[in-house]
Amino acid sequence: MLKLGIIGATGYVGAEIVRLIALRKDIEIATVVSNTFAGRPYSSVYQSLRGIFDKTCEPLDIDEISDKADFFITALPHGVSGEVVPKLLSKGKRVIDNSGDFRFRDIKVYEQWYKVQHKSPYLAENAVYGLPEINREKIKTASLTAVPGCYPTCSILAIAPALANKIASPKGIIIDAVSGVSGAGRKSDLYYSYCETEGNYKVYGLANHRHTPEIEQELSLLAGQEVLVSFTPHLAPMKRGMMATCYLDLIEDDLKTCDILEIYNDYYKNDPFVRILPEGIQPETRNVVGSNFVDIGVTVDHRLNKLIIVSALDNLGKGAAGQAVQVLNIMAGFDETEGLLNPSMYI
Amino acid sequence: MLKLGIIGATGYVGAEIVRLIALRKDIEIATVVSNTFAGRPYSSVYQSLRGIFDKTCEPLDIDEISDKADFFITALPHGVSGEVVPKLLSKGKRVIDNSGDFRFRDIKVYEQWYKVQHKSPYLAENAVYGLPEINREKIKTASLTAVPGCYPTCSILAIAPALANKIASPKGIIIDAVSGVSGAGRKSDLYYSYCETEGNYKVYGLANHRHTPEIEQELSLLAGQEVLVSFTPHLAPMKRGMMATCYLDLIEDDLKTCDILEIYNDYYKNDPFVRILPEGIQPETRNVVGSNFVDIGVTVDHRLNKLIIVSALDNLGKGAAGQAVQVLNIMAGFDETEGLLNPSMYI
Amino acid sequence: MLKLGIIGATGYVGAEIVRLIALRKDIEIATVVSNTFAGRPYSSVYQSLRGIFDKTCEPLDIDEISDKADFFITALPHGVSGEVVPKLLSKGKRVIDNSGDFRFRDIKVYEQWYKVQHKSPYLAENAVYGLPEINREKIKTASLTAVPGCYPTCSILAIAPALANKIASPKGIIIDAVSGVSGAGRKSDLYYSYCETEGNYKVYGLANHRHTPEIEQELSLLAGQEVLVSFTPHLAPMKRGMMATCYLDLIEDDLKTCDILEIYNDYYKNDPFVRILPEGIQPETRNVVGSNFVDIGVTVDHRLNKLIIVSALDNLGKGAAGQAVQVLNIMAGFDETEGLLNPSMYI
Amino acid sequence: MLKLGIIGATGYVGAEIVRLIALRKDIEIATVVSNTFAGRPYSSVYQSLRGIFDKTCEPLDIDEISDKADFFITALPHGVSGEVVPKLLSKGKRVIDNSGDFRFRDIKVYEQWYKVQHKSPYLAENAVYGLPEINREKIKTASLTAVPGCYPTCSILAIAPALANKIASPKGIIIDAVSGVSGAGRKSDLYYSYCETEGNYKVYGLANHRHTPEIEQELSLLAGQEVLVSFTPHLAPMKRGMMATCYLDLIEDDLKTCDILEIYNDYYKNDPFVRILPEGIQPETRNVVGSNFVDIGVTVDHRLNKLIIVSALDNLGKGAAGQAVQVLNIMAGFDETEGLLNPSMYI
Repeated sequence: MLKLGIIGATGYVGAEIVRLIALRKDIEIATVVSNTFAGRPYSSVYQSLRGIFDKTCEPLDIDEISDKADFFITALPHGVSGEVVPKLLSKGKRVIDNSGDFRFRDIKVYEQWYKVQHKSPYLAENAVYGLPEINREKIKTASLTAVPGCYPTCSILAIAPALANKIASPKGIIIDAVSGVSGAGRKSDLYYSYCETEGNYKVYGLANHRHTPEIEQELSLLAGQEVLVSFTPHLAPMKRGMMATCYLDLIEDDLKTCDILEIYNDYYKNDPFVRILPEGIQPETRNVVGSNFVDIGVTVDHRLNKLIIVSALDNLGKGAAGQAVQVLNIMAGFDETEGLLNPSMYI
Repeated sequence: MLKLGIIGATGYVGAEIVRLIALRKDIEIATVVSNTFAGRPYSSVYQSLRGIFDKTCEPLDIDEISDKADFFITALPHGVSGEVVPKLLSKGKRVIDNSGDFRFRDIKVYEQWYKVQHKSPYLAENAVYGLPEINREKIKTASLTAVPGCYPTCSILAIAPALANKIASPKGIIIDAVSGVSGAGRKSDLYYSYCETEGNYKVYGLANHRHTPEIEQELSLLAGQEVLVSFTPHLAPMKRGMMATCYLDLIEDDLKTCDILEIYNDYYKNDPFVRILPEGIQPETRNVVGSNFVDIGVTVDHRLNKLIIVSALDNLGKGAAGQAVQVLNIMAGFDETEGLLNPSMYI
Repeated sequence: MLKLGIIGATGYVGAEIVRLIALRKDIEIATVVSNTFAGRPYSSVYQSLRGIFDKTCEPLDIDEISDKADFFITALPHGVSGEVVPKLLSKGKRVIDNSGDFRFRDIKVYEQWYKVQHKSPYLAENAVYGLPEINREKIKTASLTAVPGCYPTCSILAIAPALANKIASPKGIIIDAVSGVSGAGRKSDLYYSYCETEGNYKVYGLANHRHTPEIEQELSLLAGQEVLVSFTPHLAPMKRGMMATCYLDLIEDDLKTCDILEIYNDYYKNDPFVRILPEGIQPETRNVVGSNFVDIGVTVDHRLNKLIIVSALDNLGKGAAGQAVQVLNIMAGFDETEGLLNPSMYI
Repeated sequence: MLKLGIIGATGYVGAEIVRLIALRKDIEIATVVSNTFAGRPYSSVYQSLRGIFDKTCEPLDIDEISDKADFFITALPHGVSGEVVPKLLSKGKRVIDNSGDFRFRDIKVYEQWYKVQHKSPYLAENAVYGLPEINREKIKTASLTAVPGCYPTCSILAIAPALANKIASPKGIIIDAVSGVSGAGRKSDLYYSYCETEGNYKVYGLANHRHTPEIEQELSLLAGQEVLVSFTPHLAPMKRGMMATCYLDLIEDDLKTCDILEIYNDYYKNDPFVRILPEGIQPETRNVVGSNFVDIGVTVDHRLNKLIIVSALDNLGKGAAGQAVQVLNIMAGFDETEGLLNPSMYI
């Protein structure tokens, strides 16, 4: 049985990882680490887990916890991961990190957009960008995998087949996206209070959201040339769910929606969590929330010769915790779908 | 033109008072007092008021502000009101207070349920309990009116006609109530964050909510004997709105719903904000949210000879800010309905 | 492998049953029956199941479908079940029915509250009331089990230990309850449209809800005497979740909350889905939504010598589909918890 | 006192018009016309208006109703307006129409996108497009004003100053927009039921939404050349509120956000309902919901030399009913803001 430690276990991403793994027979959650709740049963922090996962939270003591597990998932703020992860690696542990710290090949880009100095730049270049649909092989043997951000997962998977197949221009891409509120994490913040959020639709991070360079990095690799994107996130009044509406210019004039669908279906034919929807069907967040699926709809606007791709996922699922577990499955040699095929609740 | 000061102006009750009064021609909001936001335009705190009410918030300096207005509405936490209100009164101002500090005739009851020592007990006995439907005459000439709590307003108005007309027993009354989240005020509190609140129904304050003795005080006065109630509040996932479902035992066997409706309609025949619904129609919070109305539905359960009264109001409207403005209208000699007849938005 | 047919498969209860069973290795959903959607893939009706459960819906043809499975779950309107179930039984099938048709020992009570004539009264007396915590042994060998209503499940489980242990009076019980909107089923009805429902709290079924006599039947059996209850349901703006707040009069004066908790814990010590919460902790619907758990909190109000019991469950989970699957597990000889231990999503 | 008739009065737009006008002293709602609810008090359809507007609904009988009022607001489906409006005009009435029927200068564009034949094409060319910020003078004397669609109002007001001042390219404009659910009107439709809508974010009308040519018509007039736009609407889980995020390419390299803000403030300097937000502040729907305001935020993305304009309004307010009342004020010679300055409720 694989022994897993979760560090930063009491945030929403940590809680979702516990939910996904608690009942598995092939993985033991050997330790849940949370300085804030150290000494308290996990199920007193998340009462939904009463009777299911009652283990007591531990403080972050690397020596103590590294004896307990071989794999660690870190769900820590950026900057903090950069300090903790090297210590785990030096103990010979394999690490799946959910922060932005190890997602960038070019540390300067990271430092410019995150406005901090990187704590362990030497690691960044060896970390694998943990998007299985793009990097499955590298993930298998990685010591350190950086789980992509939620918006990058949603955007890259929507756009990758079009750029890789050179049917759309890498210039002028616009990504208009929306997230549920849980993307902001578990915090006491008036901005995310119920009364300030319910029934309210907002835009944020205009022209400066940190997920922009992450999307650009991966799309540039796929396109074989520099790709810049205009990325604008919004906040919708819902707990979970993410949608990206992507606008690309088609290169040729005569492609139809069904042609593009064929290309997309082929591109993802071996990816169990990507569902390309039939022509005329578009994604809705309810169909993916709580699951590890990403649903993608494709439409050609013949009037403008534009390709509009809409993708939806659960920001805590395929956008974070689900993807971390998918990566863990791959790294550990389990079936990639183990414990992850549960569908959304729909209602 | 009446000059009004609002102290504690940037909480939700204060903001609702500003919304209700900002466009009136007969009242000038002469000062909005908020230590937290002193120096900032009110409309930068509540952006909905941009261009409508842009006055700058002032710090709480009694000398400074008492020169500016003759009437003050205080929307302060209990305990704080007990300190501030006496100073305003000593300057000859008339005060409408929204806290629990001046609602109790018996200071000991207050101190026992609020678990604090009263700051100005000598005032409490002279304060008028500001429920116009019960105390209209006294309010007219009051120096200090204590605006009732939201649950007490909702519960007392539901039960008053039955006890005053001695058709229901004053024993064994049960009030099961629910509030929208804005009742908790404007705060950074994980408990009221969007993700912890949306789609979630909770019970709280079991057997110890502070509105219990306030309801009991007023119902005892109406019944002419001691009334104890079992009061249980819940929190529903909605911003505004309150409902009380009240269970009473009928004294006689033969009363029908239509008889009770007649009694209720008669009791409130001069009260413009109480709407007794026709037989078979029950209140819904959407019909009162944003308004100063309270809707009341009455049903006799013949099988059990019980009277079930359901009342609904807006916890920020008739349950707080609207009622404060109604009281202000009465104290100032305006038409009681001035600025308050706007209906709910329904959707 | 057990072969299961689901009749009325495209309503919300049917969809939840499919969600709970689709990935199980020990049960094959051999047929999903829906006259409305016959001929269409199930996953085109519930897009969340795309790639997970794509079987085509079949029309209701008893001969056709009864060849395919040995167990049937019927999720049909009352009245319709009364016609369909006898045919399945006559084919030697074991049936789990979700309607009100087979829940009553006394057909007259059913006919009076449901205002229809019973279609198969001879079956009603042999059907087992499918609340495992009360009737586990009888369920094991039942041919026909009637899954309890959502409100009865929530209410009976809350009150049973108090009546069975004779600590509370069987007289004067009040149950004030609330449900999420999915309890109304999947329908095109303005009353349940988003704009008429969101942010709106309503009361309904005053003094005449059909779940009242069902609660009374079971509590009477537990108390060994006739029990009448005052039951009032409400509708809260949330998709799933149910709470019952139950008010009982304690018989003795000196019981404390901790004493009652001991009694409750003992009563449910062998019931894996009932969670008695520690003193001071109350249920919240988010902790049970999506799961088969029912959470129960207990409070003694010493001032009034009342016992207040609050219970929460998912109206589609333990209140319907989850309970049906639990019953199926018991009837089929599986572990009772098989496929049902998944916790709520919390957020 | 102006006498007003409202036809199609019991839809959401009609109800919002009633809400906005019911308490005005300068306008009498002389008749509310609804075939569906003819003979029923308006306040039995919208219980929020009980005691405020109880007039009985009338059937659509042109002779009957045209005697009662001089101005009519029609809130009818497209196609139906095309039949009813000519009859009102022929009676000498002035009409404000909320459908798509009279918004197009080119009937062929209308017929192509709406896929119907126009019922009164000769009227279309004389109707005034009722966007006061663009057409105030023409509206004053119009017999027939076509109130713009909600998305066009939101989009055109966002983009107009940039095109009119030739700072952004009229090519390649992308408008990504979102609406609350009330935009779909009052209907019994499973697609808009609570359980299928709450917590769910969807895209719709991809590359074929009827508001597209309306936006293009008006932007082309402003730009003095043909403008085509890529317009994609979404549905967010909220009752009211609309946001458009507009992406334009700046023509020159050196414009800063503050320069654009100056241009926008100047453009709308005489428009009381357009609020240009200060640099760094972005619109949120809660700040406009329930009001007639449109809030606009402007951002230059220097990295891409793009101009991103975000606008928010209430789809039932400035996007429909509020704008109809604003147009009525202008046509009738009232102050344009009469009865319309109420701010949003914020919470």
